[in-house]
Amino acid sequence: MKRTKVVDALKLTDFGSTVNVKGWVRTHRSSKAVDFIALNDGSTIKNIQVVVDPSKFDAEMLKQITTGSCISATGVLVESQGAGQTVEIQCESLEVYGLCGSDYPMQKKGQSFEYMRQYAHMRLRTNTFGAVMRIRHNMAMAIHTYFHEHGFFYFHSPIITASDCEGAGQMFQVTTKNLYDLKKDEDGKIKYDDDFFGKQTSLTVSGQLEGELGATALGAIYTFGPTFRAENSNTPRHLAEFWMVEPEVAFIDLTDLMDLEEDFIKYCIRWALEHCQDDLEFLNKMIDKGLIERLKGILESDFVRLPYTEGIKILQDAIAKGRKFEFPCEWGDDLASEHERYLVEEYFKKPVIMTNYPKAIKAFYMKIDDEESGFGGKSGQTVQGTDVLFPQIGEIIGGSVREESLEKLTAEINERHIPMKDMWWYLDTRKYGTCPHGGFGLGFERLILFVTGMQNIRDVIPFPRTPKTAEF
Amino acid sequence: MKRTKVVDALKLTDFGSTVNVKGWVRTHRSSKAVDFIALNDGSTIKNIQVVVDPSKFDAEMLKQITTGSCISATGVLVESQGAGQTVEIQCESLEVYGLCGSDYPMQKKGQSFEYMRQYAHMRLRTNTFGAVMRIRHNMAMAIHTYFHEHGFFYFHSPIITASDCEGAGQMFQVTTKNLYDLKKDEDGKIKYDDDFFGKQTSLTVSGQLEGELGATALGAIYTFGPTFRAENSNTPRHLAEFWMVEPEVAFIDLTDLMDLEEDFIKYCIRWALEHCQDDLEFLNKMIDKGLIERLKGILESDFVRLPYTEGIKILQDAIAKGRKFEFPCEWGDDLASEHERYLVEEYFKKPVIMTNYPKAIKAFYMKIDDEESGFGGKSGQTVQGTDVLFPQIGEIIGGSVREESLEKLTAEINERHIPMKDMWWYLDTRKYGTCPHGGFGLGFERLILFVTGMQNIRDVIPFPRTPKTAEF
Repeated sequence: MKRTKVVDALKLTDFGSTVNVKGWVRTHRSSKAVDFIALNDGSTIKNIQVVVDPSKFDAEMLKQITTGSCISATGVLVESQGAGQTVEIQCESLEVYGLCGSDYPMQKKGQSFEYMRQYAHMRLRTNTFGAVMRIRHNMAMAIHTYFHEHGFFYFHSPIITASDCEGAGQMFQVTTKNLYDLKKDEDGKIKYDDDFFGKQTSLTVSGQLEGELGATALGAIYTFGPTFRAENSNTPRHLAEFWMVEPEVAFIDLTDLMDLEEDFIKYCIRWALEHCQDDLEFLNKMIDKGLIERLKGILESDFVRLPYTEGIKILQDAIAKGRKFEFPCEWGDDLASEHERYLVEEYFKKPVIMTNYPKAIKAFYMKIDDEESGFGGKSGQTVQGTDVLFPQIGEIIGGSVREESLEKLTAEINERHIPMKDMWWYLDTRKYGTCPHGGFGLGFERLILFVTGMQNIRDVIPFPRTPKTAEF
Repeated sequence: MKRTKVVDALKLTDFGSTVNVKGWVRTHRSSKAVDFIALNDGSTIKNIQVVVDPSKFDAEMLKQITTGSCISATGVLVESQGAGQTVEIQCESLEVYGLCGSDYPMQKKGQSFEYMRQYAHMRLRTNTFGAVMRIRHNMAMAIHTYFHEHGFFYFHSPIITASDCEGAGQMFQVTTKNLYDLKKDEDGKIKYDDDFFGKQTSLTVSGQLEGELGATALGAIYTFGPTFRAENSNTPRHLAEFWMVEPEVAFIDLTDLMDLEEDFIKYCIRWALEHCQDDLEFLNKMIDKGLIERLKGILESDFVRLPYTEGIKILQDAIAKGRKFEFPCEWGDDLASEHERYLVEEYFKKPVIMTNYPKAIKAFYMKIDDEESGFGGKSGQTVQGTDVLFPQIGEIIGGSVREESLEKLTAEINERHIPMKDMWWYLDTRKYGTCPHGGFGLGFERLILFVTGMQNIRDVIPFPRTPKTAEF
């Protein structure tokens, strides 16, 4: 008999028909007259109740079906008598695929997330992680669908790279060299001509530069892949391996870019509310009581578009009125998290797209404002960067219009002492038919944190990679 | 004025209206009376023709607009007089974003693919690579859409791993160790406790084992991410970094698996035929005259489902009748490419799903056939592996039902001397509520080769990583 997924079985209304479900036992309650088995197959956060008449089954077999066991149950679909469920199965036959010992690590409810991280391979079978993983899937699907519908092409930027894009943080080295027999040259430098790629290589920290190559050929692309930072940061916000989404578009200006950022992130959140209702309701109840309201709040608000220079004024006004901050905020300073939160959560009470930052605190490739820039840009001093700041999590998107002038870009690269020889292919985009373009980066796990209400980034990716942890 | 993408502009019919297009000049033909600029913006393989009255524009400016230049053209939409196009633009104003010198590497048509690989950042602007990349995007979108619609969840298996999954090929080492100061223990072994992850790590060769963790919790998952092989293979079929799709499903048997494989690959090919018509027509004309016919052929054929043992018989019959093969094919041998091609291209003339291979030539995790297996399996000797064999490219999918018995799996692991200590989490799926399950792997670039008719795998990924090559 063909299996029906639990998510589908729960929607059936042809009572009296026979259905088969398969899954893992969440709970098994026994009494003399009746056994109730709550069965889950991962297709939904909801369980289906299998009602078993113990007189019809082998008592020893029934007793062994404990939490975590995997079974197949066939029976008659009936309207449920219990609260909170509409459908249950009057069991006619049971098959046990796999029993589950009492040492099952997900045996008890209410284990700490820290405990569950040690069993990341088993935590996937819990309500919380099932919900998070289904939402994670849905957010990925929202991203692909959004870009596909808007004419962007999914573009696979390389993972192994010989160039250090933004110089952002430390990189992981990738090598096939025999570390027991490292050949060195006369100056004592390790020789890489015999390494796999004939040169020193590392894991990418961003696909943006390659993304620009794509956008200036295909018009609009997005990357969505793993990126890596070898930072020794043991925080709830950092992973050594995480997924990034980086769209890049030709022929856009700062307004287009901000429109894209706002439209895109709202699309993702709307998708979550429309496709992940059950999982969100669970998380809203168990993890974060303000979750759904906060998600809806994002959809309902027009994001504030705030030039950095104005932001600084607002913060300095607040300080003048007695608001205390730990860190200074003079024009030219990088804003601290407390400043961003003040603007987003206290002052505006909605998401803020901050723009036109001082050149010195942003990356070399951002378009330098000129007299005609508008938006509170200061000619020669600010760049057309955009950070989308969200309540609770701070920066969720960082983007910019890119400097398309070969001359200005080269000057910036020289001023920052970025080795030019690694950048020839990037500069070629400005040399041959350069065009205005821009894009942004979204840390995928940051989005999942926001959409699930989870607090630790290690709990929104199946198998987190952090300092000293590469288990599973 | 808002830009219209070329793909959309070409569909317009409101002649007389004013439109703006932006893009890169493919060709610029000048005469006394009129200039024709063929403009492409990457949104489609087709160019839009911009018709320029040279008397209305600065002659010097016009002269500079050569192949590769980036411009914005605004003008009146008119019905085209030329063959092969329905719409053109009578240019009223022109803006030059970026000129392009005569050293532009994509200047000439008909450059060799080998030449273009040196300019992988610029080849994206050519017809062939534009088509390939748009098809690549579409195949990714087909994959995500297929699995989403079928209730699979996208599951991110880790890239950096401390375990060597299948022992498949050589792996890339990932490290943050200072190679100039490698600490060693008393036995002279390099110490990894001070490496980033506190142990030796490498880049994944497959997400399958982690995928099984996902499937035995969420019911059905798929991975789609980069995988790595440090093999020194300089062939048109091998990349050191490539993308793999690996679905994994609980509660399926061999028939379900074969159905899934066939349905999935046909869905992808149907998607290409429906969504990539222009690009396929171009490739069919310029690269591979049999392409579209071959793709349609796949849709129209029921894949042959052939147990290995029967396949060997057919091959031995052919040999008996005088067919010559380079390699032997006795029961127990791994089939060579020539054998697969004989079966697919000569004997059956359609795709073949070969099943029930001898245990010894397949991976440790495949389900061992027993008396009840059917499908030509030999109890204890064969495993429920499935290779989908396609014309021209050979194996496009490799999959299997997985061994769900802890006892049998452990015996296999011991027999093959796979270090158990690295596998504890994998074995836990068999220990706690084990379930029948299976899945397959599809090399994404192999699919793109098949769908585009391209011959070299380096030409279907933006920036190929191969021995001695990690440029861009």
